[in-house]
Amino acid sequence: MTRTTLESATKTVTIGFDEPFCVIGERINPTGRKKLAAELEAGDYSTVEKDALEQVACGAAVLDINAGVVYNSNPNPNETEPPLMRSIVELVQGLVDVPLCIDSSVPGALEAGLEAATGRPLVNSVTGEEDRLELVLPLIKKYNVPVVAISNDDTGISEDPEVRFAVAKKIVERAADYGIPAHDIVVDPLVMPVGAMATAGRQVFELVRKLRDELGVNTTCGASNISFGLPHRHGVNAAFLPMAIASGMTSAIMNPVRQVEMEAVKAANLLMNADPNGGDWIRFSRVVDAVAEGSTFAEAARASASAGTGRGSRRRRRD
Amino acid sequence: MTRTTLESATKTVTIGFDEPFCVIGERINPTGRKKLAAELEAGDYSTVEKDALEQVACGAAVLDINAGVVYNSNPNPNETEPPLMRSIVELVQGLVDVPLCIDSSVPGALEAGLEAATGRPLVNSVTGEEDRLELVLPLIKKYNVPVVAISNDDTGISEDPEVRFAVAKKIVERAADYGIPAHDIVVDPLVMPVGAMATAGRQVFELVRKLRDELGVNTTCGASNISFGLPHRHGVNAAFLPMAIASGMTSAIMNPVRQVEMEAVKAANLLMNADPNGGDWIRFSRVVDAVAEGSTFAEAARASASAGTGRGSRRRRRD
Repeated sequence: MTRTTLESATKTVTIGFDEPFCVIGERINPTGRKKLAAELEAGDYSTVEKDALEQVACGAAVLDINAGVVYNSNPNPNETEPPLMRSIVELVQGLVDVPLCIDSSVPGALEAGLEAATGRPLVNSVTGEEDRLELVLPLIKKYNVPVVAISNDDTGISEDPEVRFAVAKKIVERAADYGIPAHDIVVDPLVMPVGAMATAGRQVFELVRKLRDELGVNTTCGASNISFGLPHRHGVNAAFLPMAIASGMTSAIMNPVRQVEMEAVKAANLLMNADPNGGDWIRFSRVVDAVAEGSTFAEAARASASAGTGRGSRRRRRD
Repeated sequence: MTRTTLESATKTVTIGFDEPFCVIGERINPTGRKKLAAELEAGDYSTVEKDALEQVACGAAVLDINAGVVYNSNPNPNETEPPLMRSIVELVQGLVDVPLCIDSSVPGALEAGLEAATGRPLVNSVTGEEDRLELVLPLIKKYNVPVVAISNDDTGISEDPEVRFAVAKKIVERAADYGIPAHDIVVDPLVMPVGAMATAGRQVFELVRKLRDELGVNTTCGASNISFGLPHRHGVNAAFLPMAIASGMTSAIMNPVRQVEMEAVKAANLLMNADPNGGDWIRFSRVVDAVAEGSTFAEAARASASAGTGRGSRRRRRD
């Protein structure tokens, strides 16, 4: 049984075929968020705080931390990202108790995040590119942490799912050379927009099944890519997630502050027998009721999370 | 390639692995609808007319016709169902151009429906019970129509999916003895409520895949059974349908006048590459926009269906 174990100081999250789908909150990322980048340059972390609390309240099991800023004062990310990564990691793990996902293409930022994080974070990411393999895998071994493996290589992203499977296999084998087990590799098979490539959905469903059956690995993806360019994207995302889950996908990097997508994930957990006695679905349906009565999803989710259910109060006692 | 062909006087619907998911509208059924039963006893068919038009406008590809009344004036369905089935079939096929699904446990009503229906209707249903096999299969052969095969037998409904698979296999083999091909058997693997049996979802997904891979048959189900007894049922149904479709399910008997479920089906079609150029999704997203502006789903769907899109106008020209 493949189990990828992530830890914060006080909490363990397991990604696995019989576990609830692991929602990795994507919001803490200044890429494409100019306002957030400017705030961070000015030393204002209020949006990061809000995003951390809100995502966890809405159901994120893990938070992705990306510090990919390009400051006006200093355009060199090798200088700016590592200290910012350290600051955000320290801030976020002081606020919430979920494990983190250290997300950067800057090696110094990955190492800064790994040094600052308590427990066992996930690293995002390594690819099949030779320089990335040689750079990231030693870090993964040194810190004994799991890693997201994106199935592109020096030739780019193949449209052929067989090639993407072969790249994933290569990464798993190369990791094994470093003594990193397959259960610490979470493969991202790469989700293309279905509006641009009509086979994109079927490709992912088949790839995920094959990755699970033949390599025995957990999987993840940037879920919202599937609906890029389409009208009414949430409707597409909300069907894609259950279909990917039924095909064996075990996590996604996504926005948990969206009710429609989170509802799809919660219902899929119930249908995959990963929600004992339906307790999580019943709690979630009360949040939906509160939204129908006028709350925002984030408000209703926060009220539910702090309402002193068994899990909430246990969590507080452990602090 | 398994293709189950249904026909009305003017229209062909194919159920198949590479076809759009076939939505069979379930509304024309007096079971549990006392008001409708009383109307029918009084010779009032206005609800049937409304249900027929509304379901087709909302996206039903096929309409199920069930005339299972128990009249106050005559409690014997062997006497009341056959003439009522004939009347409803004639009425509905005068109103809409989709193929029908003749649904009864009364043999005389099945035969009356088959006599009255033009084209090639689906029959709902045969089971693995010996008396049903002997009664229904000769009718299927005589009228050369496809049939829904429900996987229970004289021992009842097994909770063991292997037993349900074996029952389906027996029906397919018995049908072959009558010269009925497997592509004319649409297996209903039986969907249990996930609130009562936590493995119900996974069972169906695995059974559907096995029925497809090993027997090569199309499949259907009463989709809303899955959420029986749970809060916020539409959310469960809307995840179940895409998961079943990703597992290979090719049709369902369901209520098409529900936006949430239809949205899930339309998005799943897009993701299974069964919506060329996303045209159907784009049309559907305009219906969602109209609902956001205050229309009911049925009104918005009807307006969209009659708006003179390519398909709508072609359909009218064929009348």
